[in-house]
Amino acid sequence: MMRKILVIGAGKSTSYLLDYLLSKAEEEKLEITIGDINPSAIATSISNHKHCTVISLDIFNKAERNDAISTADIVISMLPAHFHIKVAEDCITHKKHLVTASYISTELLALNEKVKENNLVFMNEIGLDPGIDHMSAMQVIDKIRDEGGNILLFESFCGGLVAPEYDNNLWNYKFTWNPRNVVLAGQGGTAKFIQEGTYKYIPYPRLFRRTEFFEIEGYGRFEGYANRDSLNYREAYKLQNALTIYRGTMRRVGFSKAWNMFIELGVTDDTYTIENSEKMSYREFINLFLPYSPTDSVELKLRHYLKLDQDDIRWDKLLELNIFDDTKLIGIPDATPARALQKILEDSWTLKSNEKDMIVMYHKFGYELNGEKKQIDSKLVVTGENQTFTAMAKTVGLPVAMAALKILNGEIKTPGVQIPITKEVYEPILEELKSYGVNFKEYDVPYLGYNPNSVVS
Amino acid sequence: MMRKILVIGAGKSTSYLLDYLLSKAEEEKLEITIGDINPSAIATSISNHKHCTVISLDIFNKAERNDAISTADIVISMLPAHFHIKVAEDCITHKKHLVTASYISTELLALNEKVKENNLVFMNEIGLDPGIDHMSAMQVIDKIRDEGGNILLFESFCGGLVAPEYDNNLWNYKFTWNPRNVVLAGQGGTAKFIQEGTYKYIPYPRLFRRTEFFEIEGYGRFEGYANRDSLNYREAYKLQNALTIYRGTMRRVGFSKAWNMFIELGVTDDTYTIENSEKMSYREFINLFLPYSPTDSVELKLRHYLKLDQDDIRWDKLLELNIFDDTKLIGIPDATPARALQKILEDSWTLKSNEKDMIVMYHKFGYELNGEKKQIDSKLVVTGENQTFTAMAKTVGLPVAMAALKILNGEIKTPGVQIPITKEVYEPILEELKSYGVNFKEYDVPYLGYNPNSVVS
Repeated sequence: MMRKILVIGAGKSTSYLLDYLLSKAEEEKLEITIGDINPSAIATSISNHKHCTVISLDIFNKAERNDAISTADIVISMLPAHFHIKVAEDCITHKKHLVTASYISTELLALNEKVKENNLVFMNEIGLDPGIDHMSAMQVIDKIRDEGGNILLFESFCGGLVAPEYDNNLWNYKFTWNPRNVVLAGQGGTAKFIQEGTYKYIPYPRLFRRTEFFEIEGYGRFEGYANRDSLNYREAYKLQNALTIYRGTMRRVGFSKAWNMFIELGVTDDTYTIENSEKMSYREFINLFLPYSPTDSVELKLRHYLKLDQDDIRWDKLLELNIFDDTKLIGIPDATPARALQKILEDSWTLKSNEKDMIVMYHKFGYELNGEKKQIDSKLVVTGENQTFTAMAKTVGLPVAMAALKILNGEIKTPGVQIPITKEVYEPILEELKSYGVNFKEYDVPYLGYNPNSVVS
Repeated sequence: MMRKILVIGAGKSTSYLLDYLLSKAEEEKLEITIGDINPSAIATSISNHKHCTVISLDIFNKAERNDAISTADIVISMLPAHFHIKVAEDCITHKKHLVTASYISTELLALNEKVKENNLVFMNEIGLDPGIDHMSAMQVIDKIRDEGGNILLFESFCGGLVAPEYDNNLWNYKFTWNPRNVVLAGQGGTAKFIQEGTYKYIPYPRLFRRTEFFEIEGYGRFEGYANRDSLNYREAYKLQNALTIYRGTMRRVGFSKAWNMFIELGVTDDTYTIENSEKMSYREFINLFLPYSPTDSVELKLRHYLKLDQDDIRWDKLLELNIFDDTKLIGIPDATPARALQKILEDSWTLKSNEKDMIVMYHKFGYELNGEKKQIDSKLVVTGENQTFTAMAKTVGLPVAMAALKILNGEIKTPGVQIPITKEVYEPILEELKSYGVNFKEYDVPYLGYNPNSVVS
């Protein structure tokens, strides 16, 4: 008896996901159906696979959706997050399990009772971030608690970067995921976290100036800036009594200080459009944000505005992006500043076909055990193989695929709308991920948090 | 035959308005009805006036509204702007003229055809800003055009400040109007204007760092920061071909640079609430926005964060506000940072009962006439008499009252939903305002805008 897995949406994060499922198809008796609005874009190496069927699926077509879901045993939705709810409702109707890598929406959470009544597993946030971060953090937190420890501090940072061998620009950064998200990072609201029992707030104009540094053995130094709300998972992780909770995004050291120039200029703004943006040069675009002068150059006005010395490396970083070029055009009608900036950055930061990406993750767990304060730092680096089999696709897609198979096989069975923070889920998946090179290294380090004995007076 | 004027809303901007109408009541045969949700708050000197009737009027009570409006000859609405629309609809039903000092909303503008069909005048934006700014600007613009001149540059700035004799704190500022609007100033979106034919954008973190200076004879120097959209009246003023259009808000020099510290800290944010704000000290509040340190003082952390030397006057400005006080409490539950900051500022910036306010307005008109570039600067200063008869109440209320009477007398008669930019409106009102001390002074000055002959190479 073959089991049917319906994968909805075959975007760029699904290479490892599909590869994993198809490689297991024979031994696990799987039939993989890929439903996509644009099925012709799927590689023939996948669509021609013996156990694979590709169908055209318009998520807004109720009949198509019902046909596909009703004949599946489990559904994986890799659609953009706001499309999951229609799929989820159909999954309840037809009593099918569901797996997504997206954040649980309020609408999805509202289905929890119905999902439980039908003994279904709706597993979400089981990609990289959210996903591997949940699982790897909860594994260490539970281990510390099982030994009798009390968590005092939890910090968690993750970043998608370029692999070291291709890390060859002054920003130490290239786009390995959605460039738009990078340009808009931090604009969702004031960053909020808790440090030594005190709430801390960082407004957008300061977000990239309050960074923390990290060292990963063999990979050097990184920095991290705060995510919008570090406290989202305080209850889920049972960290209500932790003194410090801080989550953020990782970049190479110096990126944030340079990025802050764009915020100071105002070029990351996505709330209004620029007139005549299509035929505007990069130079004219930058000049929109500088004071008028009949005599001074855009270069000098910018240096003065941002108080940049001529030997400031940030100046070279701007030059590297050709922002003062008067021949390159934005080329996008009615562009917002953010969209125009994205265009400029894409010129310089797009990965070449031979270049590879890298995922880094860094957790800090401070805790008290037998009256002693201790700390574990847990670190992950994953590099991509090529532009299809990227580190991002691997770390997003493999946990999704593994969870789906384990749900199908009854290894993961606790019903409900959930995220992967229970041992039932994270233990087998983290174990299996190791064999694919997704392997955290743990270090015992001195406790980072407030320690009256180590304070300089 | 007595004429009935209904004034809805008797807030603090109505002292001069009511005084004007009541003083004209006998000769102009006016009966003034004041409708307010809280009529007992109206001074007996007003309510006892022979020609004045005070009624309780709940704007959400349709019957009360209809009774009041149907028996009036003209309606003045001094309600908050978003309440005008109900009054306006009733005015059409009962065929009554309407006067407000507020910006025309989309809903109100949509009534234009009906208003015209009924031959009604719905006069709006006829307070100070908007109001006197429109009238005084259009008077000069029309004069220049009548002489054959072509407007190249228009700048317009206005500010509500404390009168010079009570201007005795380091910020040279006290609240003379709604403190909340001062704290939230600039947060509505990126400031946009046009300078020498080029669009210019200033993001919020830079808004108070891109100021322009002004000199008013006898009153010294002022500075101005840009309003959100300087281009709102480009079409209404027929300035589509002007090279520079810039509108803004005036403060004393140094205010903006100091205010920017609050923006850098993030304490002007109104988008989230602070936990435990009620029992939080000013010092604890400020510390929310500074990095954690087990050893360093809030003072030193702030100085370092904002890069303040100890002899920077901005440091003294902060001390003057007692922001480091650990005994004064915010005292407001679930306060946003902006609300908490407002509380701190109100401690220091509330006018004492004997103190007076001041209104300043500054227009620049650059133009070309007979091949020559010229400029007129037009300046207004109005100081208040006391806390009831303030400069703000005078400059907001008198134009409203004068417009209402002139509409009633048929002097202003062009129907439609409008703002005071036609000669029919601004000529008689500006002339009458002079006799109340609202008097612009005009100066011929060298043209400010781009002039190839005056550029240093």
